[in-house]
Amino acid sequence: MIGLGLIGGSLLRSAAHTGRTVWGASDSTKDATAAADDGFDTSTDVAAALRRAAEADALVVLAVPLPAVEAVLSLVGDHAPRCLLTDVTSVKGPVGEAVRRRVPGARFAGGHPMTGTAHSGWAASSPTLFTGAAWVVCVEEDTELAAWREAAALALGVGAHVVPVTAAAHDEVVARVSHLPHLLAAVLASVGAHGGPLAAALAAGSFADGTRVAGTRPDLVRAMTEGNRAALLPVLDEALGKLGAARGSLASTGGLAATIEAGHKAARSLDEHRHAPHTAVRIDLGAPDARDGLTALGERGGRITAIDGDALTGEVA
Amino acid sequence: MIGLGLIGGSLLRSAAHTGRTVWGASDSTKDATAAADDGFDTSTDVAAALRRAAEADALVVLAVPLPAVEAVLSLVGDHAPRCLLTDVTSVKGPVGEAVRRRVPGARFAGGHPMTGTAHSGWAASSPTLFTGAAWVVCVEEDTELAAWREAAALALGVGAHVVPVTAAAHDEVVARVSHLPHLLAAVLASVGAHGGPLAAALAAGSFADGTRVAGTRPDLVRAMTEGNRAALLPVLDEALGKLGAARGSLASTGGLAATIEAGHKAARSLDEHRHAPHTAVRIDLGAPDARDGLTALGERGGRITAIDGDALTGEVA
Repeated sequence: MIGLGLIGGSLLRSAAHTGRTVWGASDSTKDATAAADDGFDTSTDVAAALRRAAEADALVVLAVPLPAVEAVLSLVGDHAPRCLLTDVTSVKGPVGEAVRRRVPGARFAGGHPMTGTAHSGWAASSPTLFTGAAWVVCVEEDTELAAWREAAALALGVGAHVVPVTAAAHDEVVARVSHLPHLLAAVLASVGAHGGPLAAALAAGSFADGTRVAGTRPDLVRAMTEGNRAALLPVLDEALGKLGAARGSLASTGGLAATIEAGHKAARSLDEHRHAPHTAVRIDLGAPDARDGLTALGERGGRITAIDGDALTGEVA
Repeated sequence: MIGLGLIGGSLLRSAAHTGRTVWGASDSTKDATAAADDGFDTSTDVAAALRRAAEADALVVLAVPLPAVEAVLSLVGDHAPRCLLTDVTSVKGPVGEAVRRRVPGARFAGGHPMTGTAHSGWAASSPTLFTGAAWVVCVEEDTELAAWREAAALALGVGAHVVPVTAAAHDEVVARVSHLPHLLAAVLASVGAHGGPLAAALAAGSFADGTRVAGTRPDLVRAMTEGNRAALLPVLDEALGKLGAARGSLASTGGLAATIEAGHKAARSLDEHRHAPHTAVRIDLGAPDARDGLTALGERGGRITAIDGDALTGEVA
């Protein structure tokens, strides 16, 4: 485990809990020391941890913030150039490109657990952080399915379910359901605060809900939104187009029916999808069309829930 | 009480609970019958209820949806043209204008309890709906302070605190903290749903928070947003400007620091205001500068918490 913050720390704790042999390193002395004090095999020597992984053919997990990924990948290229590798960062296309550039020999499958809290650092880590969470493990044309299986087994082992998609599909969808919400929350908070103390006095549920994530640490929000620039720009344009259409309609006809009814219908359709009955699916990782089967499952909103050798079990609505 | 839905019904219940003599009417047979079945003095004869209010010099409360206000005000003009009058609708400027046009002799102070639920109708009403809620009672240059006191006493009696502001200040601020959040939630839900089943599978807390109010009944959201058109347009432009600036910055420099840091700071400043220590204030409704004292208190985010004759007690951060 390279990085011992909220995600890396929680993953070290929960993987250890399932009986895996785990060790970790972080250039944060604070996190590495706190983890060692809690009885874990951790240090600040990232190179040594990587050399040990190369010798043991262990799965290396990059759990560093996005801006630190390039630097750590250089160390991986130097000390474990053929390792099994995954990551837990919030954008997948740019990280995949960085891996191809810096560690071309790695057996890599990118990952992204869709979880987190407002807190950070080893002190905030928890062995149950991933219970019930969606965990994306990317399937690309050049993904070695053996590497994909290792990353998926790690995620399943700590209580998550695995959503198999391409990096491009992941980045587009998280722009819609995670990065845009953060930007809209920031804009709403600013427009609300412009209303002064009276705004604070009259703000009720809709404003509190709509601005909740504006309280997230700005550097974390910047890292994920700026890091997903290519996918976020067209999504931001889509939102601007819809909000501009609402503005135009309100100014010209006085009506907002199209905006409000479309939003209501969309919210209901997403909700119905989440509560739809699921049917079981099976995928054989050894089959020639395994990659297509995985990405088709992910695009339909399905998930892998168990793994046994090459036999994957999952479900889809 | 004219109107026996969620707000009117809850107000009838809670005012009765405090010992007031209350009666109500609704052109919804369902609500009027349900209220009568629960032991309340209600009917579908709005004209008769208004005549009785005129005879008793009772406070008339308009608790009908915004699109029905004009029609009910015509009845008030016919049957109780000099009555004490307040309302509970979500925009105050347009309702105030309608009262001046339709019932110029009314002793009117507009009101807006900042509360509600996702449900509607008498069946959803509750005597504790207003406990701890902010309740705007408008102060205009032509507001009779005796009428203001009656509306404020009703709100305080059912457990709310009273925020005294002008209709214009109310409408601008609710555009910021209530109507814009509903439009952003609608846009976010539509952009999210465009991501298909994968979006439903990967949506986590930020999306759920940001779209929660998109589940509100579209006719209610249309009534409040379209009814506040004049105040909402410039606020919508402010949001479009900020989101457009974020888009421009992301496209040109790749940075979103200005947007994200401003939003974080705004969220913190609103939060700090809400948790700031309060100091007590007193206002004498009989003093010549009472109107200015009330609106100044409201603009500073303050509230009235008790009333005794002309003596108002309140607090401000």
